[in-house]
Amino acid sequence: IRMSRAAELERTLHDEIPLSQAMGIRVAAYDGSSLKLSAPLAPNTNHKRTAFGGSLYSLAVLCGWGLLHLKLAEAKLRKHIVIQESDIRYLLPVDSDMLAECKLEEKAFERFMSMLHKHDRARLSLTVTIEHEGRTAVEFSGRYVVYG
Amino acid sequence: IRMSRAAELERTLHDEIPLSQAMGIRVAAYDGSSLKLSAPLAPNTNHKRTAFGGSLYSLAVLCGWGLLHLKLAEAKLRKHIVIQESDIRYLLPVDSDMLAECKLEEKAFERFMSMLHKHDRARLSLTVTIEHEGRTAVEFSGRYVVYG
Repeated sequence: IRMSRAAELERTLHDEIPLSQAMGIRVAAYDGSSLKLSAPLAPNTNHKRTAFGGSLYSLAVLCGWGLLHLKLAEAKLRKHIVIQESDIRYLLPVDSDMLAECKLEEKAFERFMSMLHKHDRARLSLTVTIEHEGRTAVEFSGRYVVYG
Repeated sequence: IRMSRAAELERTLHDEIPLSQAMGIRVAAYDGSSLKLSAPLAPNTNHKRTAFGGSLYSLAVLCGWGLLHLKLAEAKLRKHIVIQESDIRYLLPVDSDMLAECKLEEKAFERFMSMLHKHDRARLSLTVTIEHEGRTAVEFSGRYVVYG
């Protein structure tokens, strides 16, 4: 079920966000509390032949969005999920294919779900990292709002 | 000269950052201290038929990068420009074509240029806004590093 939900997420991304298809984004792994999205370097390069900052950002923001989308689907909730605010730090250039990971922090997610049940609207901050050769190359932090 | 530099910037973006071409980014205006970049909605939509957050971010980060690129070209300097850190706030959804603007703050730019001459490396923070129906829909702030 988890892998079929992950495959469904990939279809949803490609169908509804054409840029994710142009970027070649794939769902690389999902285990119920961590989601990994990948993207090849070629369509995402910049003038220095490393990954374009906008591509790294887009991969990260969708990784957080996708994890929340999957967790809400597991809870049989159909909600709107939008990004409200985020910051990103580029620590190292990435000159290879990209892999982003978002891990759920259980306590924060429980608080978020209880707010959501109570108010039909809640915010969750998620951190996404992109590693390169064993080191953190990109740190993303985003605040998502869920409602409806 | 200014318009030909602006046309050259558009070619540079499309040639070196393929995602800018997939997004349909165009140089809309440049007057020596303000750069406007546009992008159509169609290739940049999300699941809610408004502009994808990653596209808004990419347009904004390239608007700051492009303005710095043009100003350095006018000063006959060939340098590397990379984004180091940024934050973005999504205030309103954008359900139309996008237009980003980055305005140079003269005093900050002078300090930056004097640092660059002295140390061959300097940082500049730039703000980019995306308006929608006369209101600020997106606020981006990015710190760029110039060196080399």
